[in-house]
Amino acid sequence: MSRVYLDQAAATPVRPEVLEAMLPYFSQRFGNPSAVYDLGFEIKEVLEEQRAKVAHLLGAQMEEIIFTSSGAEANNLAVKGAALANLKKGRHVIISAIEHHSVLNSARFLERFQDFEVTFLPVDNYGLVDPERLQKAITPATVLVSIMHGNNEIGTIEPISQLAALCRERGILFHTDAVATVGNIPVAVKELGVDLLSLSGAALGAPKGTGALYFRDKLRLVPQIHGGIQENGRRGGTENVPGIVGLGKAADLTREELADRAQHLRKLRDFLVKGITEGIPHVTYTGHPEKRLPGHASFCVEGIEGEALLFLLSRDGIYASTGSACASKALKTSPVLVAIGVRPDLAQGSLVFTLNGDNREEDVRQVLEKLPGAVERLRSFSPVWRQKMAAGTGGQG
Amino acid sequence: MSRVYLDQAAATPVRPEVLEAMLPYFSQRFGNPSAVYDLGFEIKEVLEEQRAKVAHLLGAQMEEIIFTSSGAEANNLAVKGAALANLKKGRHVIISAIEHHSVLNSARFLERFQDFEVTFLPVDNYGLVDPERLQKAITPATVLVSIMHGNNEIGTIEPISQLAALCRERGILFHTDAVATVGNIPVAVKELGVDLLSLSGAALGAPKGTGALYFRDKLRLVPQIHGGIQENGRRGGTENVPGIVGLGKAADLTREELADRAQHLRKLRDFLVKGITEGIPHVTYTGHPEKRLPGHASFCVEGIEGEALLFLLSRDGIYASTGSACASKALKTSPVLVAIGVRPDLAQGSLVFTLNGDNREEDVRQVLEKLPGAVERLRSFSPVWRQKMAAGTGGQG
Repeated sequence: MSRVYLDQAAATPVRPEVLEAMLPYFSQRFGNPSAVYDLGFEIKEVLEEQRAKVAHLLGAQMEEIIFTSSGAEANNLAVKGAALANLKKGRHVIISAIEHHSVLNSARFLERFQDFEVTFLPVDNYGLVDPERLQKAITPATVLVSIMHGNNEIGTIEPISQLAALCRERGILFHTDAVATVGNIPVAVKELGVDLLSLSGAALGAPKGTGALYFRDKLRLVPQIHGGIQENGRRGGTENVPGIVGLGKAADLTREELADRAQHLRKLRDFLVKGITEGIPHVTYTGHPEKRLPGHASFCVEGIEGEALLFLLSRDGIYASTGSACASKALKTSPVLVAIGVRPDLAQGSLVFTLNGDNREEDVRQVLEKLPGAVERLRSFSPVWRQKMAAGTGGQG
Repeated sequence: MSRVYLDQAAATPVRPEVLEAMLPYFSQRFGNPSAVYDLGFEIKEVLEEQRAKVAHLLGAQMEEIIFTSSGAEANNLAVKGAALANLKKGRHVIISAIEHHSVLNSARFLERFQDFEVTFLPVDNYGLVDPERLQKAITPATVLVSIMHGNNEIGTIEPISQLAALCRERGILFHTDAVATVGNIPVAVKELGVDLLSLSGAALGAPKGTGALYFRDKLRLVPQIHGGIQENGRRGGTENVPGIVGLGKAADLTREELADRAQHLRKLRDFLVKGITEGIPHVTYTGHPEKRLPGHASFCVEGIEGEALLFLLSRDGIYASTGSACASKALKTSPVLVAIGVRPDLAQGSLVFTLNGDNREEDVRQVLEKLPGAVERLRSFSPVWRQKMAAGTGGQG
């Protein structure tokens, strides 16, 4: 049975070129970049080369990149680090209602331990943040706004440049969690106009345990992992050299391939969405129909439990998701789907496909072949669904 | 020219068995451990196996291990996480004057952002913390004491079981940074009686970017990297699966080899110390002569600059250190050497050798052959030294 892996947002295989680039740095070129002799200097140089590659991908300067152990850590450093560096200005942060747990819980931390006030901006039925609402939420005490670039559960891409411009005019720092977008669409920090931007290496085909934070110029940040002089004092701990080399290589590959990749993903995704929405009754396409990640297709399938569907699909070698990987075991109802106004019973049937450059048309065909039967089977087990169908009340309304 | 690498505390090569164990987890077994299908479940299981291995090395339960991205991150989580989880009890922490920057700056963070008081316990000329002094420093507001197990700059091993017992009797949490000891001497958390213990994977032959924190039972910790449900909500971000697999393998190897390794290291170290102290005049052996890491030899060489000596040695293929890797670029005078009462001019000539299981007698012979000439050469450049020698005032006194 061939494997059809369409949960690329949860994890991707490390690309062979990336692993190859990393290998010498485990056992041969193993020096500590802080060491004051040639074996250290040469590794320090290698680190800086990777920093330049990541900066290049984002249209940033290499001095504006901090390496972290994950996108989540980058989000923590951005939100807590920037807020704590600006306490004199005020204690108010604004985030959207559909942020990743690493942003949400960083804001909660500020609320609980630093007397911050946190405003949660609602989103519309597509998951979009309204710039006017953001403007109204800003107070003189607002120090930071954090709105994600693309949402992993519903694929929606937020109007970051508009939102960031609003903040910049008012001297308020703007952070965006770009874990879902970097690698899938062009992401240029200057065009977006953001002060801080987080990315995950794993999303680019680099290994788990890698990430980076872009921070504008010499913007002050209070470290969240305290230590020595690493990352110019902004993030302690010996650098994960092999991982960072992998991230650099993945950034280079991403930059070269991005235009083609996005087109490829969009084509596959549209094929998948058309097939599902036309082939299976009582399915809602969630998120924005156009302003969305090219390789992202998300649905709510009425009358079923997302996890049961994933299980059936996985027995056919098809892998998908029912929400963000971090949340999927923790929560029964996705806060993102609640935020965009999906009925709780419908939200149970969340089904998310995320594609990447490795996926082929054949993968989509497999899904379109197997999914209808799996949905039908699960619905046939549900007394509620059968009742509903008998009464003729199925569907969104 | 063969390489004599004696800076093992700064960085070690990943062991071949460790790298081999890791390799399948980059591109083949790449699932996200939080995913709710077989590709995720099997990775989750692998993670738990590694947790058991690390627990076994420390004589702990697997539920008591949290994976982190470094020893520094583990120290941050221990100090800040435990302190913040016990704010109701008080806002006083005690650390020693010779802690690693990750502990020191975590305490400074609590001081600056959480109104904590921090007591810095002085050490004696060997670098030892006096239990009586600790006892006197404890106040009703003390929530946490953090004293390192072994010091990387002077090799001294602290009387942790005594210090921890003092705290336990008084209901105060005790943390030890065991980055320098785990892998070099047996470390059993129950015998030490500690509540929290940090280790670094890189010190065991696992890759950079890995670490772990032992925390007793269900001890409460406020996460420092907020995110999803990973590590039972104590540390967010997708787990660095290949790195953790490497850490598990390294823990297994360490457990099997530890007794022989310590003996081997002690023998080499003693040979090195004897050769240097007897062969080079005006050299002081720093740290405790017996209560020290088996593979650790540290000196202050009068009349020279440590960095210049490292440079000369590295040209002969010999690699050593002049203090902790994190600090060596940042500070001219080591706070550890100041704390044990070394004169500032003497502290400039700090020279630290750290050995591991890969080192052989031949390595030590090389050092003993090359070092005297290097020292002599540097001293001959120093007008101060020449003057001193002419006046007959060289030496410690």
